Amino acid sequence: MVLDTLKVVGTSARRVDAMEKVTGRAQYVTDLRLAGMAHARIWRSPLPHARIGRIDAAAARACPGVLAVVTAADITGCEPLYGPAYRDTPILPPDRVRYAGEPVAVVVAETEAQAEAGLRLLEVELHEITAVTTPDAALAPDAPVLHEALRPSGHFRDLMSLHPVPERNVCQQYEYERGDVARGFAEADLVVEDTFTLPAIFHYAMEPHCAVARVAPEGITVWASTQHPFPVRKELAELFRVPLSHIQVIVPAIGGAYGGKCYTKLEPIAVACARIVRRPVRVAITLEESAKTITRHAARCRVKTGVRRDGTILARECDLLLDTGAYADIGPRVANKSGFRAPGPYRIPNVKITSRAVFTNNVPAGAYRGYGTPQITWASECQMDMIAERLGMDPLDLRLKNLLKRGEEYVPGDTPMDGDMLEGLRRTAQAIGWPTPSGGSQFTVRSSRSEPRTANREPRTPRRRAVGLAAAFKDGGGTHSVSTAIVRIHADGSVTVLMGSSEHGQGARTVMAQIAAETLGVPYDRVLVAAPDTSLTPFDHGTSASRSTTLMGLAVQAAAREAKDQLLNVAAGVLGGDRGRMDVRDGAVLADGRAVPFAEIFAQHFGLPGGEIIGSGAYRSAQFAGTLTGSTTFWETGMGAAEVAVDEETGAIELLGYVSMADVGRAINPRECEAQDEGAAMQGIGPALFEGFVNQDGHLLNASPAEYRIPTFEHLPAHFGTILLENGDGPGPFGSKGVGESGTFCVAAAIGNAIARATGVRLTDQPMTPERLWRALKAGAGG
Amino acid sequence: MVLDTLKVVGTSARRVDAMEKVTGRAQYVTDLRLAGMAHARIWRSPLPHARIGRIDAAAARACPGVLAVVTAADITGCEPLYGPAYRDTPILPPDRVRYAGEPVAVVVAETEAQAEAGLRLLEVELHEITAVTTPDAALAPDAPVLHEALRPSGHFRDLMSLHPVPERNVCQQYEYERGDVARGFAEADLVVEDTFTLPAIFHYAMEPHCAVARVAPEGITVWASTQHPFPVRKELAELFRVPLSHIQVIVPAIGGAYGGKCYTKLEPIAVACARIVRRPVRVAITLEESAKTITRHAARCRVKTGVRRDGTILARECDLLLDTGAYADIGPRVANKSGFRAPGPYRIPNVKITSRAVFTNNVPAGAYRGYGTPQITWASECQMDMIAERLGMDPLDLRLKNLLKRGEEYVPGDTPMDGDMLEGLRRTAQAIGWPTPSGGSQFTVRSSRSEPRTANREPRTPRRRAVGLAAAFKDGGGTHSVSTAIVRIHADGSVTVLMGSSEHGQGARTVMAQIAAETLGVPYDRVLVAAPDTSLTPFDHGTSASRSTTLMGLAVQAAAREAKDQLLNVAAGVLGGDRGRMDVRDGAVLADGRAVPFAEIFAQHFGLPGGEIIGSGAYRSAQFAGTLTGSTTFWETGMGAAEVAVDEETGAIELLGYVSMADVGRAINPRECEAQDEGAAMQGIGPALFEGFVNQDGHLLNASPAEYRIPTFEHLPAHFGTILLENGDGPGPFGSKGVGESGTFCVAAAIGNAIARATGVRLTDQPMTPERLWRALKAGAGG
Repeated sequence: MVLDTLKVVGTSARRVDAMEKVTGRAQYVTDLRLAGMAHARIWRSPLPHARIGRIDAAAARACPGVLAVVTAADITGCEPLYGPAYRDTPILPPDRVRYAGEPVAVVVAETEAQAEAGLRLLEVELHEITAVTTPDAALAPDAPVLHEALRPSGHFRDLMSLHPVPERNVCQQYEYERGDVARGFAEADLVVEDTFTLPAIFHYAMEPHCAVARVAPEGITVWASTQHPFPVRKELAELFRVPLSHIQVIVPAIGGAYGGKCYTKLEPIAVACARIVRRPVRVAITLEESAKTITRHAARCRVKTGVRRDGTILARECDLLLDTGAYADIGPRVANKSGFRAPGPYRIPNVKITSRAVFTNNVPAGAYRGYGTPQITWASECQMDMIAERLGMDPLDLRLKNLLKRGEEYVPGDTPMDGDMLEGLRRTAQAIGWPTPSGGSQFTVRSSRSEPRTANREPRTPRRRAVGLAAAFKDGGGTHSVSTAIVRIHADGSVTVLMGSSEHGQGARTVMAQIAAETLGVPYDRVLVAAPDTSLTPFDHGTSASRSTTLMGLAVQAAAREAKDQLLNVAAGVLGGDRGRMDVRDGAVLADGRAVPFAEIFAQHFGLPGGEIIGSGAYRSAQFAGTLTGSTTFWETGMGAAEVAVDEETGAIELLGYVSMADVGRAINPRECEAQDEGAAMQGIGPALFEGFVNQDGHLLNASPAEYRIPTFEHLPAHFGTILLENGDGPGPFGSKGVGESGTFCVAAAIGNAIARATGVRLTDQPMTPERLWRALKAGAGG
Repeated sequence: MVLDTLKVVGTSARRVDAMEKVTGRAQYVTDLRLAGMAHARIWRSPLPHARIGRIDAAAARACPGVLAVVTAADITGCEPLYGPAYRDTPILPPDRVRYAGEPVAVVVAETEAQAEAGLRLLEVELHEITAVTTPDAALAPDAPVLHEALRPSGHFRDLMSLHPVPERNVCQQYEYERGDVARGFAEADLVVEDTFTLPAIFHYAMEPHCAVARVAPEGITVWASTQHPFPVRKELAELFRVPLSHIQVIVPAIGGAYGGKCYTKLEPIAVACARIVRRPVRVAITLEESAKTITRHAARCRVKTGVRRDGTILARECDLLLDTGAYADIGPRVANKSGFRAPGPYRIPNVKITSRAVFTNNVPAGAYRGYGTPQITWASECQMDMIAERLGMDPLDLRLKNLLKRGEEYVPGDTPMDGDMLEGLRRTAQAIGWPTPSGGSQFTVRSSRSEPRTANREPRTPRRRAVGLAAAFKDGGGTHSVSTAIVRIHADGSVTVLMGSSEHGQGARTVMAQIAAETLGVPYDRVLVAAPDTSLTPFDHGTSASRSTTLMGLAVQAAAREAKDQLLNVAAGVLGGDRGRMDVRDGAVLADGRAVPFAEIFAQHFGLPGGEIIGSGAYRSAQFAGTLTGSTTFWETGMGAAEVAVDEETGAIELLGYVSMADVGRAINPRECEAQDEGAAMQGIGPALFEGFVNQDGHLLNASPAEYRIPTFEHLPAHFGTILLENGDGPGPFGSKGVGESGTFCVAAAIGNAIARATGVRLTDQPMTPERLWRALKAGAGG
């Protein structure tokens, strides 16, 4: 297909769910009502580490409307533990709680209020024991061991390569070495070594986690707000010993996810309760409870880099320490992936990486937009500017010198770099006015929010202004990834796409509709993309890792092509003529100069009552054993440039402008790509400047939505926008590739670099609060 | 596949939904709850024919909880009329009601009780006009015309051949002629001509009709108790001008259907109301309202037959008059089909048939188990005995002489007879003890209910006892039929079947699970068959005409074979070895003497996170233009033999025994086949002996469940059972063919023939009440 003939792909088609959402009619799990549905509220541990004593449920059970109080002892006839990486997580813990917020008991009642009332009467004896609430404490020789034995869940090959005898409380240790870093450092003209930190943060999806379960003799149905319906199905099947065919996981609209809804969360509790009360059970939690369900890993990253005088990087050593909390969740994979990507998107002959995820008595940490990349980019991209400064080089030039060119390999044998990072970084720099602050005058970004809004908050004292850059990448698409899709052409020529990618606001359903419409030559508004239902939509690994447009997109495109092929066969049978010269356009088959509507072909072939044509397609990632993380499907690269103004008297930092660059290969829907990238960048502003959990000995002091600060539109810079790099060189449909995570990668480093260029002071700990900057400025002045 | 190696097919596997149903957990449409769901109650015309005057809804609208009162004037922006055969049915009539019970207005309220309260305050002015409540009255030259113009809906080719200018109030006229009946009668030694009648009856499904509609910006979702989800989707798409892809019809468990839930019923009202109140709307009606929604055609059948002295049938002329009520529904198809089958399963060189469906001011009549066959069998099979008596022949011999042998054509060019009716009839006769009453001693039927229960009701006076026979057939599977299916093999080797056949108690899901399990070599309990959902399960014409096991069965088998083929390809890739010599058994691939579980092959091929294999399959009926009714997929034949005892003093008739024979080709599930056939025979006892609507000038006097009599277990004969004929000669999977309707065909004729043989008196009108028999006995004695 010649690209300039594209009709649907490349247009900013209105989201298929736009009207549903703006009219408030989209259906979320919380909207579900089932006959006889009961409601559950969870009693959570107030202590980070404790032995569970007697649970007195008598008063709670006597409460009006209470159907059951469920504790670990009540949950029988199933496997004791689950988890996507290790089977380390109990549905409810039988004897020990490992973090403050861990579910201990569940009250199930006719109404949510009755369950809540019952909860308040529950008496749980907890005997506090020593907690370890930092990786350092957990690694100490006398630290309590959080998990005596770790049994891999067997879902992932890369997690089965765990070092056989892990160090105390080490959940996962990723190691990689290439070349000889010692020699590299020896040959270097400059060796720098720095350590950077980031606290745990909250995904803060608008919709907290929710699950509803119905357990029937024929099987288990769960409605869940999850990014991973099929892995959830697998975990429930194994937990409750039911064939995959008899577990149905349905995913309606999701109100945001950002990795926080990866894998299994509330679903086992919902199923366990439904089995006990023999009624459907709904478990809807609050935003504060969501914050105590999963976090982004707090991290400490030590990076040591050796460079030649001309800026050539010779060696890099990265040592990552990730606080994975009390249960592994998908933390081991985050350790692997952040380790894999830690050196950054550069040509480095000598590399040595250690990445460890460590168990602590904190809330479990798991996937978060970028899967460790925001953490490692903070470290390595700050250090790039520090090196440039030491060498007296322009940070842009340093990066351009070392960035992988298109076709170069990051890891020998893995997929070569598939995009033009040099072009991307040059355009990003140009858009911010590199190397000097432009005040937005040179912005050429495609943003609708370019109107300056700084007029009324001009500070009293002159401020220092500067711009900063960062570049980052990740291997997109996930590991050992499979996506399948079914495309059905109906008798009136309209089309249904069955696929298992969740729609959590990112526009997956819209993009798939565009891909199917384009491939089949039907109008966009005649394509419906069904929501995931593991009983009815075919397998997909999950909606994460920026994978849907590329991987599910390829599956949908393959399914649509198969359906088109069948349609043309049918058309040839009905119309006669040369099959090879037929094509489709605007819902019609083009044959011998005629355009025959699909409906007419169907009527002739099937008869008037109808029929349909079914195509199926699959994507299966290539196998590559070179690293623990498997073969790379595509490279998701992101660049960022920030302009800041710093008030040196107060430490106040204003983000004046931000440019994000996303290499999308080809934008299936440019407006949605921009929205994804801008949303990611906006989300990145929080942890850069003010966001993060305050963890006091395992207690999250600011987990409530009233106390936890996230960016609002007020925090957006006056000049803000996204550059989409479209060279048609992605491996996805029509040359596309994944987008949506990369926007978060560079924000903090670009801002940190701009602050350093403005003030000469380097911050290494997130968030870069005014207080931290003020203290650093003071120290710098004093030093 | 060698049949004696079958592991699942041919076993009486427990129904997949057995536990759901016996524990009361099966979900019916009425069980559905949706957030914000409103409830509708329908105001129905008390008059059979009237002009609609003013509708005063003010008081109803003021009722607490009432959200809307919907009349025809409120329903805008859609097509005015719908219907599967003709577009003759308004969602609500704008100006005229055509039958007593027709919906006129709908009250939508927060609760059903509030809607009902509103209904009582609704004031509707109706101006009665002359009603025609019998076909004869409707055909009179001065009769009011019920439909001025008839627009075919275009769904069916056979209905497009309607005579261009129909006679006044003739809805459909089917005509067929072969040979020269005049010459046939002239050459005959005996010509008999008789007329038989049957009243309208009620399907009486335990679950009345119900529909819930949700109208959202993205499309329309309807949960419906329907046998025809895909045709309902098509009608809603056309009515509301939405692509097929954007109409979702979901069919949960159905509590009986029997043809009464064919095609569109309450769905347009539900959608229209949901559009108006902008909330989901549930329309649940009472059993009495169901009785006023659809009936079985009242019929008058004139049959004229000419035979040779030796019993050879030379000519038969059939003239059928069907009361199709006020709207066509699928009545035209019933007229066609009953006409097509009217001569019976015999070798007749000269045939002339006229079958007319006539509009009247009665409740619409439509599909009913057998689709006209019970009516025409009543006529033709009674007449066979009357001929035998006149010829002094044994009725069994007369039938055996004329029955079509296997391979003979009923209509030249159509599918030849595919079963052994002669064997079937011989075995039926033998089982009843033909030619003399056996009192059940010779019964060799497979019934679990063979214990005599007549001891306590032995009549006071000696009774006359006799046995009677009948034979019947229909072209099974429907016309221009398409079924498609998808079979998914999951990573643990379990299987999901996606198909659109409704489960209304007949066991479709069970049979499909068996077919898929057998074809794929997996255990039966590891197969799940999903319920119909037009957005997610692929196209099926409908669940009617005994078509599912054969047509959908073939589609499921084809899909399973395709999946198996792919699985073996994958296995060959993973295991190496000779693909051609691999097979499947017990959830494993057999290769080189090893049995490798599917799960292992999946893990190696897809990696541990999983994946799936998807097969799709389709059945499309052959096209045959020889008759209006299309090509026959298979012949569903049924025989029946009854033993009766008649009290000549009172006319009391006791059914002592009944044997039903069903040629199932091969029973996929023998117990379910028996249950279907026994259920059909039991359902046939009602109209034979006592059931039927009492229609007084268009008013059904006994439509309430308290007054309408149907057979109960008390009416079952002491000796009752089914013979399954299994010669493996059906066109369906494993030699099967459809069953479930044929059991109803012969009951009345067999009983009528037994009564005639016992008493010498012939009843020609159903039901054969004691009063009718007593009067006939009196008349016979007096004559």
